[in-house]
Amino acid sequence: MELIDGNQIASTIIAELKAEVTGITGRKPCIALVRVGEDPASVSYVRKKEKTAAEIGITSRIILPPITISQTDLIRQVADLNADESVDGILIQSPMPKHIDELLVFRAIAPEKDVDGLGTMNLGKVAQDDDTGFVSCTPAGIMALLARSGVDLKGKHVVVIGRSLLVGKPVALLALQKKAGANGTVTICHSGTSNLAEITRQADVVIAAIGRPEFVKQDMIKPGAVVIDVGINRVPDESRKSGYRLVGDCAFAEVSTIADKITPVPGGVGPMTVAMLMSNTVKAYRQREVK
Amino acid sequence: MELIDGNQIASTIIAELKAEVTGITGRKPCIALVRVGEDPASVSYVRKKEKTAAEIGITSRIILPPITISQTDLIRQVADLNADESVDGILIQSPMPKHIDELLVFRAIAPEKDVDGLGTMNLGKVAQDDDTGFVSCTPAGIMALLARSGVDLKGKHVVVIGRSLLVGKPVALLALQKKAGANGTVTICHSGTSNLAEITRQADVVIAAIGRPEFVKQDMIKPGAVVIDVGINRVPDESRKSGYRLVGDCAFAEVSTIADKITPVPGGVGPMTVAMLMSNTVKAYRQREVK
Repeated sequence: MELIDGNQIASTIIAELKAEVTGITGRKPCIALVRVGEDPASVSYVRKKEKTAAEIGITSRIILPPITISQTDLIRQVADLNADESVDGILIQSPMPKHIDELLVFRAIAPEKDVDGLGTMNLGKVAQDDDTGFVSCTPAGIMALLARSGVDLKGKHVVVIGRSLLVGKPVALLALQKKAGANGTVTICHSGTSNLAEITRQADVVIAAIGRPEFVKQDMIKPGAVVIDVGINRVPDESRKSGYRLVGDCAFAEVSTIADKITPVPGGVGPMTVAMLMSNTVKAYRQREVK
Repeated sequence: MELIDGNQIASTIIAELKAEVTGITGRKPCIALVRVGEDPASVSYVRKKEKTAAEIGITSRIILPPITISQTDLIRQVADLNADESVDGILIQSPMPKHIDELLVFRAIAPEKDVDGLGTMNLGKVAQDDDTGFVSCTPAGIMALLARSGVDLKGKHVVVIGRSLLVGKPVALLALQKKAGANGTVTICHSGTSNLAEITRQADVVIAAIGRPEFVKQDMIKPGAVVIDVGINRVPDESRKSGYRLVGDCAFAEVSTIADKITPVPGGVGPMTVAMLMSNTVKAYRQREVK
């Protein structure tokens, strides 16, 4: 069994981006990081993004509207950032306060600055095999993990567990693309799938993204399969100071004994998302500079 | 075995649309039908669309740019139609002449008038389970055939053969949606799938859209499966006056003996596409009138 080390692969990508951005003379790429309110997880995520941007040499602009901001005003701020020539990418940290319709805010981002890839246009481009768009960060991270671990999906059966807009559907579309590394046969399962284990046992590659702790057991996996675990679930653990530990959607201890390659949780898909956000920001900069 | 009669179902939908449009007082829905050049198949398709529109009470405006029109001028014409308040839907008949980049022309259509559903935004909305968009006509027709034949995909394994942008990918996304009639477990196979028959034999519903005459044989189908045949292939047939006959992607004679329900070719999916185009046009009208 080989561990797919997301920290290591993310570090490599970040180092590559740093080398690329260092080579840029003049204006550097710039990402606007918008965080509404003080949700502790969001504070930590945005700080991590800011820190990684700084490490690469990407300018970040932190925008902190009050938690009471109206949807109209937030969308107006997005429109200002769309119009701002010095901003290449816009990230609006989720979750937003309950009175805000996130989908409408995401859709307000200009497609050419939508580096989080959550807008309709960029998802449509994924379905169209169109590389000019931005793939959202988790599915992009999964594809990068596979590519950099030497896993070619061509002729392979890829089974995705979970049909979310953030992970399941886009990663299924990516695995299916007519592109080097992709060209997989793809099955998308979900909570309503009747014979799930029977299907996952046929998979050469399993991508687990259902958000249920340790849901995927050893007897659901074909020996020698590649397993990508997208889940990050907190389970109570009194032995920890925090009172919990993080586990994936796969029962790692047992699945790892028969998988050929597997991502750990934490340290698998998680670290990749920030790296892919930065990669998208540099791409947005390049596309805007060419114009 | 029950035949899924596309002519019959399309007629029913057209009659329903006629009743709906008859009830509209004032301005009627209007579709612009753009045909570049005199390709005989295109002439016949556009005529059929015009005739069906007239039957329903939808106004059609036929626009026939010369085959020599430049891409820029064609896109300008599309922009004029986008701006024209009296036009609800725009269809540009494919194929266009070789010097035109079809994708760019399709993308020039305003999403709210893209009743053929080929633009990036409308495909993205299909992936987002967003019903405000327009589903392209063939996949929409397939879903309507299933729904009106009493086939509920919930808990079923749907295997789509073919990953085209026009059929395979959108119909897979539709079958997967969290909507009544959908909620299927979906596998997408294609020319690069290694163990195709093994996968299709597991399917409760097979959607064949690979464009290879009589490719799907009896031994690829589970007894009792529902088979939707999207292929329309010409094969030489000296016994016909035309010198050819139309066959689907399934070997109908043998597959129909074990399928529970099956679409014939012709007379299955084919007749549905024009009906769905008209349905989308009425929907575009309704959405624009509300605004």
